Amino acid sequence: MLNNLTFIGCDKDYDKSDIVIFGAPFDGTTSFRPGTRFAPNVIRVESDGIETYSPYMEIDIEDKFITDIGDIECVFGNKEKTLENISSMTKEILDSGKKPLMIGGEHLVTLGQFEEIYKKHKDVVIIHFDAHADLRDDYLGEKLSHATVLRRCFDLVGNDKIYQFGIRSGEKAEFEFSKENTIMEKFNSNTIGDVVKEINDKPVYLTIDLDVLDPSIFSGTGTPEPGGLTFKEFIDALKHLAGLNIVGADVVELAPQYDTSGVSNAVACKVIREVLCLL
Amino acid sequence: MLNNLTFIGCDKDYDKSDIVIFGAPFDGTTSFRPGTRFAPNVIRVESDGIETYSPYMEIDIEDKFITDIGDIECVFGNKEKTLENISSMTKEILDSGKKPLMIGGEHLVTLGQFEEIYKKHKDVVIIHFDAHADLRDDYLGEKLSHATVLRRCFDLVGNDKIYQFGIRSGEKAEFEFSKENTIMEKFNSNTIGDVVKEINDKPVYLTIDLDVLDPSIFSGTGTPEPGGLTFKEFIDALKHLAGLNIVGADVVELAPQYDTSGVSNAVACKVIREVLCLL
Amino acid sequence: MLNNLTFIGCDKDYDKSDIVIFGAPFDGTTSFRPGTRFAPNVIRVESDGIETYSPYMEIDIEDKFITDIGDIECVFGNKEKTLENISSMTKEILDSGKKPLMIGGEHLVTLGQFEEIYKKHKDVVIIHFDAHADLRDDYLGEKLSHATVLRRCFDLVGNDKIYQFGIRSGEKAEFEFSKENTIMEKFNSNTIGDVVKEINDKPVYLTIDLDVLDPSIFSGTGTPEPGGLTFKEFIDALKHLAGLNIVGADVVELAPQYDTSGVSNAVACKVIREVLCLL
Amino acid sequence: MLNNLTFIGCDKDYDKSDIVIFGAPFDGTTSFRPGTRFAPNVIRVESDGIETYSPYMEIDIEDKFITDIGDIECVFGNKEKTLENISSMTKEILDSGKKPLMIGGEHLVTLGQFEEIYKKHKDVVIIHFDAHADLRDDYLGEKLSHATVLRRCFDLVGNDKIYQFGIRSGEKAEFEFSKENTIMEKFNSNTIGDVVKEINDKPVYLTIDLDVLDPSIFSGTGTPEPGGLTFKEFIDALKHLAGLNIVGADVVELAPQYDTSGVSNAVACKVIREVLCLL
Amino acid sequence: MLNNLTFIGCDKDYDKSDIVIFGAPFDGTTSFRPGTRFAPNVIRVESDGIETYSPYMEIDIEDKFITDIGDIECVFGNKEKTLENISSMTKEILDSGKKPLMIGGEHLVTLGQFEEIYKKHKDVVIIHFDAHADLRDDYLGEKLSHATVLRRCFDLVGNDKIYQFGIRSGEKAEFEFSKENTIMEKFNSNTIGDVVKEINDKPVYLTIDLDVLDPSIFSGTGTPEPGGLTFKEFIDALKHLAGLNIVGADVVELAPQYDTSGVSNAVACKVIREVLCLL
Amino acid sequence: MLNNLTFIGCDKDYDKSDIVIFGAPFDGTTSFRPGTRFAPNVIRVESDGIETYSPYMEIDIEDKFITDIGDIECVFGNKEKTLENISSMTKEILDSGKKPLMIGGEHLVTLGQFEEIYKKHKDVVIIHFDAHADLRDDYLGEKLSHATVLRRCFDLVGNDKIYQFGIRSGEKAEFEFSKENTIMEKFNSNTIGDVVKEINDKPVYLTIDLDVLDPSIFSGTGTPEPGGLTFKEFIDALKHLAGLNIVGADVVELAPQYDTSGVSNAVACKVIREVLCLL
Repeated sequence: MLNNLTFIGCDKDYDKSDIVIFGAPFDGTTSFRPGTRFAPNVIRVESDGIETYSPYMEIDIEDKFITDIGDIECVFGNKEKTLENISSMTKEILDSGKKPLMIGGEHLVTLGQFEEIYKKHKDVVIIHFDAHADLRDDYLGEKLSHATVLRRCFDLVGNDKIYQFGIRSGEKAEFEFSKENTIMEKFNSNTIGDVVKEINDKPVYLTIDLDVLDPSIFSGTGTPEPGGLTFKEFIDALKHLAGLNIVGADVVELAPQYDTSGVSNAVACKVIREVLCLL
Repeated sequence: MLNNLTFIGCDKDYDKSDIVIFGAPFDGTTSFRPGTRFAPNVIRVESDGIETYSPYMEIDIEDKFITDIGDIECVFGNKEKTLENISSMTKEILDSGKKPLMIGGEHLVTLGQFEEIYKKHKDVVIIHFDAHADLRDDYLGEKLSHATVLRRCFDLVGNDKIYQFGIRSGEKAEFEFSKENTIMEKFNSNTIGDVVKEINDKPVYLTIDLDVLDPSIFSGTGTPEPGGLTFKEFIDALKHLAGLNIVGADVVELAPQYDTSGVSNAVACKVIREVLCLL
Repeated sequence: MLNNLTFIGCDKDYDKSDIVIFGAPFDGTTSFRPGTRFAPNVIRVESDGIETYSPYMEIDIEDKFITDIGDIECVFGNKEKTLENISSMTKEILDSGKKPLMIGGEHLVTLGQFEEIYKKHKDVVIIHFDAHADLRDDYLGEKLSHATVLRRCFDLVGNDKIYQFGIRSGEKAEFEFSKENTIMEKFNSNTIGDVVKEINDKPVYLTIDLDVLDPSIFSGTGTPEPGGLTFKEFIDALKHLAGLNIVGADVVELAPQYDTSGVSNAVACKVIREVLCLL
Repeated sequence: MLNNLTFIGCDKDYDKSDIVIFGAPFDGTTSFRPGTRFAPNVIRVESDGIETYSPYMEIDIEDKFITDIGDIECVFGNKEKTLENISSMTKEILDSGKKPLMIGGEHLVTLGQFEEIYKKHKDVVIIHFDAHADLRDDYLGEKLSHATVLRRCFDLVGNDKIYQFGIRSGEKAEFEFSKENTIMEKFNSNTIGDVVKEINDKPVYLTIDLDVLDPSIFSGTGTPEPGGLTFKEFIDALKHLAGLNIVGADVVELAPQYDTSGVSNAVACKVIREVLCLL
Repeated sequence: MLNNLTFIGCDKDYDKSDIVIFGAPFDGTTSFRPGTRFAPNVIRVESDGIETYSPYMEIDIEDKFITDIGDIECVFGNKEKTLENISSMTKEILDSGKKPLMIGGEHLVTLGQFEEIYKKHKDVVIIHFDAHADLRDDYLGEKLSHATVLRRCFDLVGNDKIYQFGIRSGEKAEFEFSKENTIMEKFNSNTIGDVVKEINDKPVYLTIDLDVLDPSIFSGTGTPEPGGLTFKEFIDALKHLAGLNIVGADVVELAPQYDTSGVSNAVACKVIREVLCLL
Repeated sequence: MLNNLTFIGCDKDYDKSDIVIFGAPFDGTTSFRPGTRFAPNVIRVESDGIETYSPYMEIDIEDKFITDIGDIECVFGNKEKTLENISSMTKEILDSGKKPLMIGGEHLVTLGQFEEIYKKHKDVVIIHFDAHADLRDDYLGEKLSHATVLRRCFDLVGNDKIYQFGIRSGEKAEFEFSKENTIMEKFNSNTIGDVVKEINDKPVYLTIDLDVLDPSIFSGTGTPEPGGLTFKEFIDALKHLAGLNIVGADVVELAPQYDTSGVSNAVACKVIREVLCLL
């Protein structure tokens, strides 16, 4: 074998790795514009155009022990089975003492991974970057949906465990639910420093819906919402997270075909690189 | 109300109409590249650029009594409910003595309409244009799928009732199934004249997966298969159908976003115009 | 009729409505890159992907009485007749005590609507968001042009009645004309708060050329001008307008085909939603 | 001056040239999808990618005396003035004993050139390749339109002087008009050999609406009509014209932005190269 | 490792394989529109959308022993080193008794592989499908270029060993060179049957520049040439090759970014599948 | 000659001109996504859509004496010869007492021009806007590369003569090299005012890699790097340069095909207009 398509620089032996990347190319509940199923492989291919060194974190991910093991199998038309496959993979990674970074896919995939994280870390809190609240109890009657995924996580962790940033779209009811049950900063992420202090050394799960970024810099997503974070603002937010005890993460909702310029792919690659620096 | 978006020229009163167009914008089981959910409205918008007069059939569809009543509601993540909505609409159209023309959506939508057609016309035969055989018994375990839809129709009508043209992709098992159970012309539609004679005055259901056309002229589809019919070949095939007793029809699998030139939209509009001439 | 394509949530009965949306899909005088003629229907189709609730204004437009009545007829090659059709529609809406929101089309369409607004409200002032001054007296000899439309409005209202924001392109002569005759803030909209106080309870006509936004977030327009407002800056400006007596409005110059990502469509939908909150 | 953008190989001195190319980048009456105004310069830029040698005609256009003098000025919103500019240019070329090849723009530009051709050659016949009949007497009341241009030419030359090939779209009335007044081959160009014999040594004006080609090979046009000529069929038709006394020509209706692959540009370049071989 | 990106179905053990696929993602001498460097990985990703069963050859490539080992390293700005890397890989494959199928990249990569083929099979003949003759002795002074590659092969094999099909673009001198030195069928591949008989049991190297296909079906290439083979014609030509002693092959010149519809990718995948059936 | 494609308003006589524009359409060492070879002519064509008056500088470039003389010849596969052609052109411009503005092409072209600038102005300093440090000593063994170009300039001018702004990507070694040898502001250009004071009246060479801009506003480039300057920030930086003794400049790295919206082209045109105001 000459080469093997992985996220750039993440081709260490599995056994020696501390961090394991895998893809979950599923978009079966996407209600508006589908396409996130194509993200993991596009990200791997495009990662060839980025540097492994982050001038933001001043870390080179080649110096870390990371492996990219490919994609889990997704069953279109069967979201339950797909979530099981994710859970099973996450469990295996956690059981071997490594940290998982999952690449979506739509946001529902988070649930499969988070259930395993929660089993292992009952006091885990969630840091959630997103344009959308994702707090509906159901979406057209469906309990399992990209639009309900944080509500399902809430069902596990309960009140005041979910920190949401950049939220700027949702039903009125979602914003009202969040007032009682989650800690939401609408539109921005200015409060992240305070949140980090509050979290202190609790285990953290980091879920990044890339549409938290302004569509000016990230147009490759199904439901673009103007008024989001600039890339600089988002990097600043991520830099605040250094030092937290992050036990797992995901980066979701790139739909590469909507951005023919390739910029969204480059952005996704860089966000993943920065998250790898944090893990 | 100044205007009302309909397929061009199809804005007659419902009660006076002989033909009823409706959309079924569902692509929930699409396994490769989704997007047919956007077809019905794109077709209506783009139909503004075509003539109502067909020089092929020498008929002006403005002279016919046709109405376009909009789209049925699709529930993403619930294909059963979506098929029910289609069946219910088709039943209503048939019960009022009109003929339905459904615009997809993915090919699975055919099943919802055909079940009602079959209830009313037990001796119905199917003329099926497609690049794909769609004869799998299941697709990754799912019985209801774009890849199984003609097999499900076969379950209703039985042997030697399905005439397939232009087929050029499938699993080996599908081609073997067809040898025993359907009448398939691979790659072309040269035998259509003989088939029309054989069918004679039996009721006919016409289902057109637009990917039967060569992707040179129809690139706006999820799974393009080179080696298909040219537009002229397809029009010639359709002209053979004049005189048949067509009791219902559908035109499916346009995914407009894959063809940014707009040609596929124009092709879909023209195919629908020609089918309206046939009904 | 199953559905009817309208801007999302704006399907109330005409008689009960307070606000009437209509489209003016005309781009006959566009000198550089045409295409705004496609905007109204694209906006209606794409509005399906946005929420009716605005977290900026904390208003749900479903709670308001709004109807979308479709498009007026545009005659290409005859701008005078097209403007008459617009005027006639605006007059009808105003005469029935409702407020019009017109969706362009190119900026010239504003003139057709504003003439009727001015007839009814002689003391009206104009709030104008745009990248371009649009203050030429003629464009290659033509008096009626997208590049002269505010000058024609000036011919009606006279000095110091037109407030211009975000302007960053024009001939030297236009900037000089504005020094004497209009109130222009170049590049930004920082003075909007002071302007709102100055206007107080005078009737206001709001005309939004969407290219006032930076092309990073709104690339779907014929003549993109970098250096514009961010979406957040623009929303902030709009929020200042709450409380003004806005008697009519238009949103113009989306040319959807230049932005294949769909972001510009989403932005246009959201701007229209926010303007509806203001009316 | 290092270089000068011309159609490839066509940079001879004006005085020594036998053939003069000029552009007419006008699309002011386009009713559906505009954009042909961009064709002449795109064609010049893209011609850099083609060979000057035609293996079809076995001629190298570098061996001929051809000059490309750039574009006439087009006044948007004033089709009469634009046509005058074209006529004036054509007259100058004809008066100096050269042959004009005009690159559109929309099809209306033909009229400006043909009026001068007709003044000089009263017995001229027209060979017209097009998907559309272009024989309407008016289009929404306008006498000068892309959709009426051959009818206006008919007003000059009278009955049985216009040979039309590839026509496959129009109103019923246009097809009926053609039965009495023009010689039309619908869909194809199989009769071109007979037509060439009939024309014999009469002066010929050649007008090529590139949409005569099937949109599979030429998607870059405002109103694509499937069912057109393949490139091979069209080249064969052109080869039949060798030996005719062609006194002027035009190639119109490329709208480059609709075909992002660049294929339509390459096709337009090659058609122009072949036409140059014929002149 | 969950999965490993390979051409679909080609993931057998290297040692047990009869056929070895590798990529040569180089486009360093491309003179017009670059981009073939992206082809191998795009082809692997997109191959997920095709069937492993060929209804043309009635063979399922899953039943064969094929492995895809990834890409050789290409050094941009150093074509000599890149060709060495290719030669070295081909030698290794041949030495282990397997047959190589190389995926380009630009056409120059053929030279690296063919030199090794020729060392092993001195009596090898070349079957060459292409739109371009590629017979220049130099291109702007460069001996190693996509435009000279078959001339360099000719330098090895000598007269009457290269069979060229579909050629329709080149300098006059190339067509003249071919009259003396190669066997060329211009425009078509009708003579392939006779050629196959003539070749009989001699070893054959098959080099397919995908631009031999008409750009209607294959627009994703740097220098599209209309007037090419239809997909059906090309498949028919390939079917003639069954039974020949093909000792190696390449498929080159897909530049995926020029065809945003994905059709060219699907075509390339299918051509590779058919070639695998032949090996 | 009717017209002549130049950058808008820059068509003065060469002899009377103070500033000479020329293009260097070379991208032969581009390692990731090529395409800058198309920039000069695209910029000329698209410049037709911008005003000659800059509201930022309050200067109309039509009032200056500027000529655009076209492109130098680039030899693909021979970077040394291409650089010689550039040097030769720059020398000619400098020898006639004019200032050169070169439009790239990739960043390597800077070297050809800067060598001549340096011969004439030994005390020249460089102001460098870029996302990338471009300070590698070699790139895969190549000394002449887009990724090494500033290092080659450093070889000429030595320590502390190169001011770099906006840098946000590179190998760790490049950032370390810059600490000793260049004056680099990472990510931003906030220190530009201080730098201008420090430079005072020394001759300045200005090299602008357009990817210094954030890809939100400039996606048309081969290696987009999020986190760049906004257009307003960049214009502010350029305004600081007014008054400096700029002796030559270049604007490089537009790859127009990656941004189908045309925004990047418009941005490049405007940056060139502003640079012309500075010269």
